[in-house]
Amino acid sequence: MPDHPLNIALIGFGTVGTGVARILAEQSEQLSVRAGRELCLSRIVVRDVDKAREFVPAGVPVTNNIDDVIGDDSIDLAVQLIGGTDAALSYAGRLLKSGKDLVTANKALICAHGNELFDIAAKAGRTICFEAAVAGGIPVVNAITTALTGNRIETIEGILNGTSNFILTQMLSENQTYEQALRLAQQLGYAESDPTLDVDGTDAAQKLAILTRLAFATDVPVDRMVCEGIDRLTLADLEAADSLGYRIKLLAVSKINQDRLEVSVRPTLVPDDSTLAQTNGADNTVTLTGHAVGRLRLSGAGAGQMPTASAVMADVIDYACGRAVNTFQAVLRNRQQPSLTGLPQEEPAHRYYLRCTVDDRPHVLADVTDILGRHEVSISSMLQSEPSHPETPDQSARLIIMTHRVKEGRMRAADAELDALSCIQGRCLRLSVAG
Amino acid sequence: MPDHPLNIALIGFGTVGTGVARILAEQSEQLSVRAGRELCLSRIVVRDVDKAREFVPAGVPVTNNIDDVIGDDSIDLAVQLIGGTDAALSYAGRLLKSGKDLVTANKALICAHGNELFDIAAKAGRTICFEAAVAGGIPVVNAITTALTGNRIETIEGILNGTSNFILTQMLSENQTYEQALRLAQQLGYAESDPTLDVDGTDAAQKLAILTRLAFATDVPVDRMVCEGIDRLTLADLEAADSLGYRIKLLAVSKINQDRLEVSVRPTLVPDDSTLAQTNGADNTVTLTGHAVGRLRLSGAGAGQMPTASAVMADVIDYACGRAVNTFQAVLRNRQQPSLTGLPQEEPAHRYYLRCTVDDRPHVLADVTDILGRHEVSISSMLQSEPSHPETPDQSARLIIMTHRVKEGRMRAADAELDALSCIQGRCLRLSVAG
Repeated sequence: MPDHPLNIALIGFGTVGTGVARILAEQSEQLSVRAGRELCLSRIVVRDVDKAREFVPAGVPVTNNIDDVIGDDSIDLAVQLIGGTDAALSYAGRLLKSGKDLVTANKALICAHGNELFDIAAKAGRTICFEAAVAGGIPVVNAITTALTGNRIETIEGILNGTSNFILTQMLSENQTYEQALRLAQQLGYAESDPTLDVDGTDAAQKLAILTRLAFATDVPVDRMVCEGIDRLTLADLEAADSLGYRIKLLAVSKINQDRLEVSVRPTLVPDDSTLAQTNGADNTVTLTGHAVGRLRLSGAGAGQMPTASAVMADVIDYACGRAVNTFQAVLRNRQQPSLTGLPQEEPAHRYYLRCTVDDRPHVLADVTDILGRHEVSISSMLQSEPSHPETPDQSARLIIMTHRVKEGRMRAADAELDALSCIQGRCLRLSVAG
Repeated sequence: MPDHPLNIALIGFGTVGTGVARILAEQSEQLSVRAGRELCLSRIVVRDVDKAREFVPAGVPVTNNIDDVIGDDSIDLAVQLIGGTDAALSYAGRLLKSGKDLVTANKALICAHGNELFDIAAKAGRTICFEAAVAGGIPVVNAITTALTGNRIETIEGILNGTSNFILTQMLSENQTYEQALRLAQQLGYAESDPTLDVDGTDAAQKLAILTRLAFATDVPVDRMVCEGIDRLTLADLEAADSLGYRIKLLAVSKINQDRLEVSVRPTLVPDDSTLAQTNGADNTVTLTGHAVGRLRLSGAGAGQMPTASAVMADVIDYACGRAVNTFQAVLRNRQQPSLTGLPQEEPAHRYYLRCTVDDRPHVLADVTDILGRHEVSISSMLQSEPSHPETPDQSARLIIMTHRVKEGRMRAADAELDALSCIQGRCLRLSVAG
C-alpha cells in the first residue's frame, strides 16, 4: 500500500457526487485511518462550471474538461458518477487507458458495457469498482464477491428498484392510483421526470444482470430476460392481492433451476408476512441463497444521495487500502468460468394471479374457464367483483383468478387466447405468485 | 499475491471444522478462481486422533500435536476452530509468533483476548481474521470493516444469539415452557448441554463487544455492560407481550447516545411488525445505522455447521487473495482512535415492561403504584390477570405494567423497592421496550 495520498477526481457532481464530496470533506480523518492513507479530492469535472451548487469543497478545482483529469498523472482514481452510457463509456475507457482506476455507480454502463470495460481494465492493469451500481447503500456486490466466496450461490431474489417499490407501497397504504403515486414519487425525487426505466422493470433488470454475472459467471442481457414493470398495475390489483394475503412487489429473481438459469423481473405476489412484503417505500432488499450460508438477507436504502455515496466511499477505501485490486482480479478470473444455459422462459412453473375486465353478461365465465381448462391451467380460487369499483367500467365485471402451479408457456398461451376473447376488455393482467 | 498454493492447517475438527474441510474438498476449483491460488488443506489437529468422524478429507495428515503445525514452515494459515480461551489463546499466540496467519471463529477468545492477540500479530507482522466469531454466516464484521467505511456508525442493534431466539420462538409458537423449549433446543443441537452462556446473555455480549470495538474503537468488557439473559422469562410474559403487540427478543444494542456509548444485551419488547420480531428460530439479524447509509439490515443463520463454515471460508479466501492483510491493518489502526466514554447504566431512558406476582389481597395495587409514583415512573398501561394461569400460584395475581419513558436508574430504584414489598412474591421481572 503506497504511503502517498490518494488523489481522486470526481467525474460528475450531481446528487451522489455532492454526497461523496461531503463525506470526503467531513470525515477526512476517519477515512485516512480506514484507508491507511490520506484521501485527497483533487479535481471535479462537471458539465456546466457556472451552475449554482449546494456544496463545493474548498480549494478543489472544478473543470468541464475531462482531459484535465485524463492528462493529469497525479490522479490515481476516477470516481465517475454520470448517468447514461455514451459519454460515460467513452470517458471510462479513456480514463482506464490513461492509467486511472475507476469507481462507478452507473448500472446501465456496467450492465451493457461491463465486459468491454473489464477487458480494457485487464489490458491496462487497472481496477474497476461498482458497488454503488446495485441497490444503493446495500453492499450486495461485496456480499457476492467477498462474503459468500465459500458458497455455490443458488438464488438471488430481491426488490432492486426503489421507485417502483415506493409507488406500490404508496398506492396501497394511501389508497392512491398509480398516476397519483407516481406523481408523488416524482415530487419527492424518487422518480425521474421520465420514469420509464424504473417503472417498466429495466432498471431492476440491469442491476440483476450485474449480480447474475458476478454470481453465476453468466451474461443475461436485459432483453433476453423476462422483464415486466409495474405500469399496468391498478390499485384494485393491490387490494385484491391484499385480500388474498399477498403484497405485490417488483421482484427480481436469478436462480439455478434444473442446472439452468432462470432470470426474471416482474411484479409478483409475495405472502404478506414475508420480508419482501415488508420492504416498504424506497427501500431495497436482496436475499442471496448459498449452499453453505443458507439464506442471507440484506435490506436498506436502495437509492438516495447519502446511501449511494456510502457505497461509492466503500469502493474508494477498498481501493485506497489495496483490497479492490484483489477483488477485481477475482471478478476477471470469474469471467473465465463456464457460463450457465438459460432456462427457456416457457419452462418454469409458477402459480399465477390473473385479472381480466369482462363484459357483465351470460356465458363469459364459461368462455374464460374453458380456455384455462384446455391449456391445463387449474384454478385455485376465483373472485368476480361487483362492477361498482371506480376503476371498473360500467357494464363490466372484474375477474380475479388464482391458479395452481403451471408452466409459464401454458399460462402465456391461455392468456393470449383470453386476450382475443370478445367478452374481455383490453388485456388480462398476469402476475406470478411467489412460493 | 503469491503464485504457490496456500497451505492451511485446521486446528480443531468439530462441527465447523468438518464443514470447512467439506467446502475445501468439494468446491476446490471454484475456490481457486476466487482466491487466485490453490487452497491446500495440509494438516488437521485434533484432540483425539482415534475418534470416529463423519468426514476426513483423503490424504490429509491428522495429528494431536499442535507443534506439527507450529514447526511446519510450509503452512501459511492456521484456521483455529476450538472453543474456550485457555488452549485457544496459547495456541493462537504461538502460531502467530511462528509466522502463521490466523483465522478464528472463537468469539470468547477475540472478545477477552483480542487486544493481546492483535498486539502479538502486529509485532509479528501477521493477520487475524474473525468473521465467523460473530453472527455465524452473516457478514457483519465485513460490513463494519469494509462496506460501511464511509460512515460514522451510530447504532448496532441485533439478535446475536440463535439459541435464545430459538427458545423464545418455540415457547410462543408451540405454547411451551422455558424448560421444554430449552430441552428441545438441546435435542436439536441449538443449545449446549450446559446452555448457561447462551441463555444468560454472555454469548451475545461477547459478540457485541467485538462489534463495538470495530465500530466505535472502544473496549466494553462484558462485565461492564448491561447483560441480562432470557432465563427468567415465562410463557406468560411472552403471551402478555403478544397481547400488547410485541415480541420479546434478546436484543443486543451498542449505540452513541449523547456522545457517549450505551451498550446492553437484554430481553426487550419489540413491536410485532418489526424485522426484529420476525427473526425467528435460530436466525440472527443485525441492523447497522450509519450517518450516510442509514439503516442497513443483515439477516440469516447465526450459527450452525455450514453457515459458520461459510464465514470461515470467506476469511480464508480474503486472506488467500490478499485482501485480509489490508483489512486487519485497518483494524489495528482503528484501535489507535480515541475511544468513547460509556454512558452510565442509570442514564438511558426506556419504556419498561414490569411483571410481578402479587398476593391477591386488598391494597396491593396501591402499594405498588405508590412506589412507582415516588420514583416518578409513570404507568402507561396495567393488566392484572386472573390467578388462573397455570404458572401463577394460587392466591396470587400477576401484574403486568407498561411504563412511559423513564431513566433506567429510577426504574431500578423502584424495582428494588418493589422486590422488598412483602406482598410481592419472588422478584419482579423488568424488561425494556424498544422504540
